[in-house]
Amino acid sequence: VAFHGVGAAGKGRLAGELLRELDPRGFAVHTVKEASDDEQLRPYLWRFWKNLPEAGRLAVFLSSWYSSALNREKGCNSPREREALAERINIFERQLTDGGYAIIKFYLLISEDEQRKRFEALESDPDTSWRVTKQDMRDLDKHDKLLTTASDLIDTTNTPSAPWVVLPADNWRFATMTMLRAVADRLHAAVTAHVNPPAAPQTESAPLGPSVLDATDLSLTIDREAYEKELDELQERLRLLQFRIYRKRVPVAIAFEGWDAAGKGGSIKRLVRTLDPRGFDVIPIAAPTPWEKNRHYLWRFWTQAPRAGHIAVFDRTWYGRVLVERVEGFCPPADWERAYREICEMEKDWSDAGTIIFKFWMHISKDEQLRRFQAREATPEKSWKITEEDYRNREKWDLYKDAVEAMVQRTSTEYAPWTVVESDSKWYARLKVLRTVVEGLEKRV
Amino acid sequence: VAFHGVGAAGKGRLAGELLRELDPRGFAVHTVKEASDDEQLRPYLWRFWKNLPEAGRLAVFLSSWYSSALNREKGCNSPREREALAERINIFERQLTDGGYAIIKFYLLISEDEQRKRFEALESDPDTSWRVTKQDMRDLDKHDKLLTTASDLIDTTNTPSAPWVVLPADNWRFATMTMLRAVADRLHAAVTAHVNPPAAPQTESAPLGPSVLDATDLSLTIDREAYEKELDELQERLRLLQFRIYRKRVPVAIAFEGWDAAGKGGSIKRLVRTLDPRGFDVIPIAAPTPWEKNRHYLWRFWTQAPRAGHIAVFDRTWYGRVLVERVEGFCPPADWERAYREICEMEKDWSDAGTIIFKFWMHISKDEQLRRFQAREATPEKSWKITEEDYRNREKWDLYKDAVEAMVQRTSTEYAPWTVVESDSKWYARLKVLRTVVEGLEKRV
Repeated sequence: VAFHGVGAAGKGRLAGELLRELDPRGFAVHTVKEASDDEQLRPYLWRFWKNLPEAGRLAVFLSSWYSSALNREKGCNSPREREALAERINIFERQLTDGGYAIIKFYLLISEDEQRKRFEALESDPDTSWRVTKQDMRDLDKHDKLLTTASDLIDTTNTPSAPWVVLPADNWRFATMTMLRAVADRLHAAVTAHVNPPAAPQTESAPLGPSVLDATDLSLTIDREAYEKELDELQERLRLLQFRIYRKRVPVAIAFEGWDAAGKGGSIKRLVRTLDPRGFDVIPIAAPTPWEKNRHYLWRFWTQAPRAGHIAVFDRTWYGRVLVERVEGFCPPADWERAYREICEMEKDWSDAGTIIFKFWMHISKDEQLRRFQAREATPEKSWKITEEDYRNREKWDLYKDAVEAMVQRTSTEYAPWTVVESDSKWYARLKVLRTVVEGLEKRV
Repeated sequence: VAFHGVGAAGKGRLAGELLRELDPRGFAVHTVKEASDDEQLRPYLWRFWKNLPEAGRLAVFLSSWYSSALNREKGCNSPREREALAERINIFERQLTDGGYAIIKFYLLISEDEQRKRFEALESDPDTSWRVTKQDMRDLDKHDKLLTTASDLIDTTNTPSAPWVVLPADNWRFATMTMLRAVADRLHAAVTAHVNPPAAPQTESAPLGPSVLDATDLSLTIDREAYEKELDELQERLRLLQFRIYRKRVPVAIAFEGWDAAGKGGSIKRLVRTLDPRGFDVIPIAAPTPWEKNRHYLWRFWTQAPRAGHIAVFDRTWYGRVLVERVEGFCPPADWERAYREICEMEKDWSDAGTIIFKFWMHISKDEQLRRFQAREATPEKSWKITEEDYRNREKWDLYKDAVEAMVQRTSTEYAPWTVVESDSKWYARLKVLRTVVEGLEKRV
């Protein structure tokens, strides 16, 4: 539930009316202020994703993801910027409601006279005068102009799944009643839809092109001497690039997916080996924990969106949705089918915020995988890496292969392309990963 | 592992040498900068508690909890302030090492000439010149003075469980070798101690005084009319106090413990009913999750330390350590025995940072509890609150009572006193809680 409105419109008081009778252990209130240092380093929506409530809980925002447009923050002054924001917000809210969240947004409307009166009352008491800022007084003079901006934005973001309710807040009793009724109706509808979910629309996905994986030449290899020479050279170039990334405040995301034992870990190690440890994070992604499962599946990735000037390396990624979750049936087909688009939208959002994105599929043959499993089992300090589950996954090789094909073809975009890495030769694979990153960064930073 | 030293001493490079051969999924690097907005609102150590690694993982700090003294941050300029910080740090590190953490701290020592040379080299390249700040240049002129400050601090915080290693960093090879050997030795010792833990020293706790609980008059009650009148009046006073708390940036912690069905929830609800929801959080504490169990037991409370200007209400608290964990044997006696002191130290730390702390034990008779259990079971929308576990806990009433006595007597301090609330009458109890908070705040804010 999000409350908006000019200063002293009564956002806090109205939120209080909503929450008064609720068990305080079941809700959290988030006040949106100017972006903190940490928030400034991430894509705009990061701070809202971060505060997404768990299933069964209520989050109240005062105000919300609209604040940068409604409060004319830096970078959101022109109609075009507001339009771009509205588009991102519509995507954000659609993803949430498709993921089962109920959203309702209120705009409190007060007259200029009433606002002035309230400011005066607040200012007359030393315990409340801090609530009226200079910005508030400047805004008061632009009361009508702000209203026009707000109504344009409200109009373009008033979707069936995340509707706006405008409340005339001069009249307190009416505003409160309308708000309470709107929340009750919305929650009632959401609970009903949860108990009897509407049939998911049949989506017809575009047919895939010729196999990308089959076209991969797994015989590619390199000899040790050439490997070591080029490795040193690429690592040194990357080390220097890291300074430039930091200086220019560029966020970088490097995503690794691949067959079990394809060599993700080894490639990541060579990638970060010469980097300053302050400038990168390696983020291992395992099966979601209960508290992650209780939120939108993108939540745990959004909260780890790379910081400006830093490199985030994901060891397995958000593509779990269309790989393991699809193949093992951990989510209904409609959910993973929708995910191709949602994932591209997330990557687009990060990219629009300046993030450079690399995605690697580490590809090996089924025979090579078996050799590596057996080699690991024969090595005492590595044998713990191989479990029965690895063999079970191996039995579903063809199903996984279909999922990988669909993933690579449907989520390769200009802003976040896939690189299929021929990995039967570990040396070849490591160099290709490094070379792709180094050349990509040199071109773009 | 924490690295310190003047600018360009090579902290990042040395951390790199440590991490180079490690699996990047097993460590995290934390760079300590000026406190962020969020950090400024909390006690100083909050940001380090927040980044405490899980069991089995390595956290590298560049620099660490020493930074505010070593870098002469605001509020840590005088010898006396540094001494106070050293004391807090010694407590912090003792708590961690007693909790099974291994700590090692490095100070990189370079000569003034060498530092100047390194700055010049960095400045000559546009990709690295940003690394030399104006503060660095000012510090260079005070090279010797900074060193004296550092060595005093190192001396007073060089404990057997968290030793300092000073590395002459002009000679890179020697510094690297010494660092690697020191880390390896420390980890080896920690693993050995973990496998063969030394016998916990027998602590003789002071005998308790006469029973506080038995002296409680549970017949205290109030009639409805008087209850409603005083409730309204106290809630209104608290509502006004909240503004003052915010304006003066006072953090407030209100901790609730009590018998099952003693009325914690109802008291909390009346407490926050008229408050602006932006200014308080109600934090329910359940059994620790796996990721909480993998850290120091105070971690999940430290990370929730109240923000300046806000009220944090804890529904059950850190006292679980000396109540349920003691009675049910969830931790060895030496652990909960040590906890009385550790908990007081945490509260003292919060208090020194300006936090006003209230602690309530909601006390009811065993008969009253049974009546409430039965009443809940007879009420359809409340019956889920009563489980077999509640009855099992009830059988251990006397053991819990002993634990409560010890807790109240051993952790009642001037800065964080216990209030035992006679709760057989719900109305009486709610008013006593509210009155204690309101009068306490009026006196102190």
